[in-house]
Amino acid sequence: MKKITSINNEFIKELNKLHEKKERDKRQQFIIEGFHLIQEAKRYLDLVLIVDEKDEVAGIENILVTKEIITKLSFTKTPQNIIGICHYFDENQLTGERFLILDNVQDPGNLGTLVRSALGFNIDQVIMSIDSVDMYNDKFIRATQGAVFKMRMIKRDLIEAILDLKERNVLIIGTSLKASIDLDSLSSINKYALVLGNEANGVSDDILKLVDTSVKIRTNSLLESLNVGVAGGIILYYLDKKQE
Amino acid sequence: MKKITSINNEFIKELNKLHEKKERDKRQQFIIEGFHLIQEAKRYLDLVLIVDEKDEVAGIENILVTKEIITKLSFTKTPQNIIGICHYFDENQLTGERFLILDNVQDPGNLGTLVRSALGFNIDQVIMSIDSVDMYNDKFIRATQGAVFKMRMIKRDLIEAILDLKERNVLIIGTSLKASIDLDSLSSINKYALVLGNEANGVSDDILKLVDTSVKIRTNSLLESLNVGVAGGIILYYLDKKQE
Repeated sequence: MKKITSINNEFIKELNKLHEKKERDKRQQFIIEGFHLIQEAKRYLDLVLIVDEKDEVAGIENILVTKEIITKLSFTKTPQNIIGICHYFDENQLTGERFLILDNVQDPGNLGTLVRSALGFNIDQVIMSIDSVDMYNDKFIRATQGAVFKMRMIKRDLIEAILDLKERNVLIIGTSLKASIDLDSLSSINKYALVLGNEANGVSDDILKLVDTSVKIRTNSLLESLNVGVAGGIILYYLDKKQE
Repeated sequence: MKKITSINNEFIKELNKLHEKKERDKRQQFIIEGFHLIQEAKRYLDLVLIVDEKDEVAGIENILVTKEIITKLSFTKTPQNIIGICHYFDENQLTGERFLILDNVQDPGNLGTLVRSALGFNIDQVIMSIDSVDMYNDKFIRATQGAVFKMRMIKRDLIEAILDLKERNVLIIGTSLKASIDLDSLSSINKYALVLGNEANGVSDDILKLVDTSVKIRTNSLLESLNVGVAGGIILYYLDKKQE
């Protein structure tokens, strides 16, 4: 097994550049960490760095490194003894019958939570607007707890994507606090795309113009709004149950 | 209007100690920041520090300070020009018919999201276990977006609290991935307490022994678990809708 002990090793320095989005995009690679995520990411792994030979991951290149090197490459304060280098997902077309569309969702934690819910409630693909948070952002990847590796993820111009889906008879469901339809009056739908918007501004007007219907979740009037991850979870649950 | 310009002013130093839980508990006070939160927190505000006289808050003491002082007292990198000092909520008894019980929920973001959902779905009181995150933690307060000031919040020994609620005929609903009852087979209930658990370990065994029923949310088997904030939101939505 190859071994690297210096934190100034050129290869390690090169890997460390993957902390920057620009560099990730150039190499089409990103860093993940922790045993659980690496377990979940198997099909995307190019390489792992481990501190102890007993942690060897079968089927790919393993490099033995020091804890100091792990700490340098890690995004967290108390990293586990493993770092993985993955390649990009390479998803290039819209596919399936149920979609979650995210219009400029910015918080990596909210986005991660939404991908977990999408996986749980049988969404086929998550479509993110170009201006959404980077899908290889470390906080996002960690917040998905590995669900991102089991979900089809794609970034697209949303107007083009929605027009495409409409041609395939996918019902586009917007969300808006001003919507006239309560979630629980929505009937059973086979092909749908749920559109969720930015934390502060909601779904943009350009997109709301294209939706087939728009729903809201009725809440106590004392509350200004639900968290976007919670609102998305409730609607995805509801749409999934309606299918049964 | 009183004015303080030195960051080394004794009173400012004293206020800065409120960053520590021990000191907060001693004085029964905590710091909040931002115009929106201060608007929502009116009934708990003792004092505000402002940079500009035009931001004066009516009905309480205002002190004019420098931006440097605001930055010192703030928890965020780019604070708004206002800091508020609030007193503790002083909630000392179980009250109402609908409860959300949080057994050692640790992430301030999850807890904040849950309090928003509790307010939205007509929960009367949130009961936190003694070992849950501090309810005056700044990240928690911010994550509630002010909902915490409209919700009754109390910390209690959960076993005592649950026994007390059972005597009042409140149905105690646990959550567990091993539960045999799916959420959608739960019937309409008037008085209920939903128990949510720790992010990693769920509801503790001691508490699960006391629940009247335990529910799970059916999801695709590829998903290990939903985020606790999302799971809580879905169940609270469901219980609230069943009442209508």
